[in-house]
Amino acid sequence: MPDTGSVRLDRLESWVGQEVRVSAWVYNIRSSGKVVFLQIRDGYGWVQAVAAEKELESVVWQRINELTEESSVMLIGTVSKHPKRSEYELQVRDVTVVHRSEEFPISKKEHGVDFLMDQRHLWLRSKSQWAIQRVRNTIIKGIYDFMEEEGFTKIDSPILTPNACEGTTELFELDYFGDTAYLSQSGQLYIEAAIFSHRKVFDFGPVFRAEKSKTRRHLTEFWMMDAEVAFATHEDNMALQEKLIEYLVKRALVRNAEELACLERDTKPLEKIIAPFVRMTHAQAVKKLRSFGSDIKDGADLGGDDETLLMQQYDKPVIVERYPAAVKAFYMKRDPEDPSLALCDDMLAPEGYGEIIGGSEREDDHGLLLQRIREHNLPVKDFEWYLDLRKYGSVPHSGFGLGLERLVSWICGLKHLRESIPFPRTINRLRP
Amino acid sequence: MPDTGSVRLDRLESWVGQEVRVSAWVYNIRSSGKVVFLQIRDGYGWVQAVAAEKELESVVWQRINELTEESSVMLIGTVSKHPKRSEYELQVRDVTVVHRSEEFPISKKEHGVDFLMDQRHLWLRSKSQWAIQRVRNTIIKGIYDFMEEEGFTKIDSPILTPNACEGTTELFELDYFGDTAYLSQSGQLYIEAAIFSHRKVFDFGPVFRAEKSKTRRHLTEFWMMDAEVAFATHEDNMALQEKLIEYLVKRALVRNAEELACLERDTKPLEKIIAPFVRMTHAQAVKKLRSFGSDIKDGADLGGDDETLLMQQYDKPVIVERYPAAVKAFYMKRDPEDPSLALCDDMLAPEGYGEIIGGSEREDDHGLLLQRIREHNLPVKDFEWYLDLRKYGSVPHSGFGLGLERLVSWICGLKHLRESIPFPRTINRLRP
Repeated sequence: MPDTGSVRLDRLESWVGQEVRVSAWVYNIRSSGKVVFLQIRDGYGWVQAVAAEKELESVVWQRINELTEESSVMLIGTVSKHPKRSEYELQVRDVTVVHRSEEFPISKKEHGVDFLMDQRHLWLRSKSQWAIQRVRNTIIKGIYDFMEEEGFTKIDSPILTPNACEGTTELFELDYFGDTAYLSQSGQLYIEAAIFSHRKVFDFGPVFRAEKSKTRRHLTEFWMMDAEVAFATHEDNMALQEKLIEYLVKRALVRNAEELACLERDTKPLEKIIAPFVRMTHAQAVKKLRSFGSDIKDGADLGGDDETLLMQQYDKPVIVERYPAAVKAFYMKRDPEDPSLALCDDMLAPEGYGEIIGGSEREDDHGLLLQRIREHNLPVKDFEWYLDLRKYGSVPHSGFGLGLERLVSWICGLKHLRESIPFPRTINRLRP
Repeated sequence: MPDTGSVRLDRLESWVGQEVRVSAWVYNIRSSGKVVFLQIRDGYGWVQAVAAEKELESVVWQRINELTEESSVMLIGTVSKHPKRSEYELQVRDVTVVHRSEEFPISKKEHGVDFLMDQRHLWLRSKSQWAIQRVRNTIIKGIYDFMEEEGFTKIDSPILTPNACEGTTELFELDYFGDTAYLSQSGQLYIEAAIFSHRKVFDFGPVFRAEKSKTRRHLTEFWMMDAEVAFATHEDNMALQEKLIEYLVKRALVRNAEELACLERDTKPLEKIIAPFVRMTHAQAVKKLRSFGSDIKDGADLGGDDETLLMQQYDKPVIVERYPAAVKAFYMKRDPEDPSLALCDDMLAPEGYGEIIGGSEREDDHGLLLQRIREHNLPVKDFEWYLDLRKYGSVPHSGFGLGLERLVSWICGLKHLRESIPFPRTINRLRP
């Protein structure tokens, strides 16, 4: 049963007064006895189809009255416009039932999240989950378009790796033909190799963290975009991050107005996301946090609670830069004005969403990088190829990683990361 | 040392007669005593910079004479056009050495592939490897643009899965907090769930096969694009595949003329890739193969050698459809005119490149699908969620998987898949 000639439900506007054929699912049914109101969706739009007994052949009227929610149908009807709103309706003439649905497990009543996640393959059909994946799709495509406009080449980093980027804890391990492999936590080190060939590169794929944490911020499998730029400084790096986030938020606002409305997302805070963002050093952030009542210590990393507390004061993203090197990764370049600090930054999203980006200038001196690897007790042998990048035409370079699910959660206004990805994986969820 | 104000080497055309600043790597050096010819690249372009002793301050001349291959530099010079070709040169006025390279391990002489793969992080800098990754980048972005134009939503399928899509052999297995997880071989089953929400969906990410094969066609980690379309038949499916491949080949020809030339790829065969492609049934293919001297049996799947033999006869892709159901996956819908056949197709690339796409209409009847799962001795319990998709508004639907590395290898004219991916993983390679 091909749907050649079907009209998309988000394009009824150009068919007002004409008869069209649509193929869709019935997601809600109301009846007044003589008129049945079918709420239908086709993947693109959500509209009402009105079937009146007096207008229909009796066999069609009977078919309509036997329909169940989630049944798939072919409808023929005339498009009409709502007298007041810019909504369109179908006045039904004929219906073909493609498949009559059994009773759908997800009803209109409240369900617990565990139940809904067990039914994730079906829950994806709900309007809010549809809206979230549409926003996610906009962000993904937006990243590709932005990176192309900025002259980046995509370099896919490997998932199967022989060693860890930032230490060996929280790694998934597997047997690789008798060798041990780990699932990648970040493609950064690999794409650094490619800047010598392509100058500006990025990867964008799944990464893994065997994190035992059960907080709402953590998934064991999530999508990360890593960017790396030759001849770029810490300042260039922060400017690029701002430009990217402004671009993506604006694109979601333009392309997903309907989806954000359906999620009841207040878009006013998103309309304020215009560069430049707020910038402060780690030392300034610690000072501010203390003034807000935190007992954070001077050289300490910012925890989730600190980030939330800090961000209550701002309606734009905040870039916290120059953290103490001791709490950051080995590959970060030190601040020449204070070598106890790293030339790094974390971008925190407003409205309590916390870190969405982490980046830094990378150490480009062979001797210093070797020293850091030793200080962090990392196996030098495993990093020989990475050290090589500082032997043959080393250049200053910087990069960052953007967490897709954190960004989507913020833009959609979600309480938990797990709804931002189609099939979430957490410490206690590997199914469906 | 930021490169604000640097001019891209692929954009010198608009700077003829003017002095510019460029940041780049020196990939070759020739000297005639009084003139040094530096071949430089900046990630976008490859040009010659000419340094003449009589035009330069002696300190600059000395710096130039101490340069080594792969050193990173900042150059200031005037752009000139080659009198005959549309090539541009730089007449050097000043040079700053960013980093003087140690002796580069990859010399101009022939190296074995194992050596080059050990040095993959450096080999990526060679012009041919640069060209391949640029073509790969074009194909990746082309897939995203095509899918957007066709109304698809990206639905990321999970890598960590509790069971196998097509049987449990050739799977990488790992411990998942006490449970067993497998790395995904295909996201197809997962994205099928999303057609009920988004109608047309795709995923595009790494998949894994613990294949002990050492042939030139196999990687253990590679990128796959899966597409799935509600209300689409086997015929719709083949038409979409043709349209996609025609689009991608054309885009590479338009955007990567320089890269394909540098790979010495004869582009004439690619210019013939215009839909419709050649189509034949599996039975017709077997008959043809026998007439070419093959001893292939009637119900047998096509092996790599069969594909190569068949494709010697065609200069367009060949779509072989309706294979015996017995040699294909459980989820394929049967041909209503001959239930021993599956409504499936494989697309074979010409010039001996073999299968680049495999697709089918999916079984949408709950009872028949359950029967197939049992016939294939698959654990019904693990497929309950997948069977659910046939209980609640089931629709006819079709989809296919496209192997990125096979497509890139064909378009680039590569002998082996391993050069088509930045960091290949094979049975005996997990590093770097």
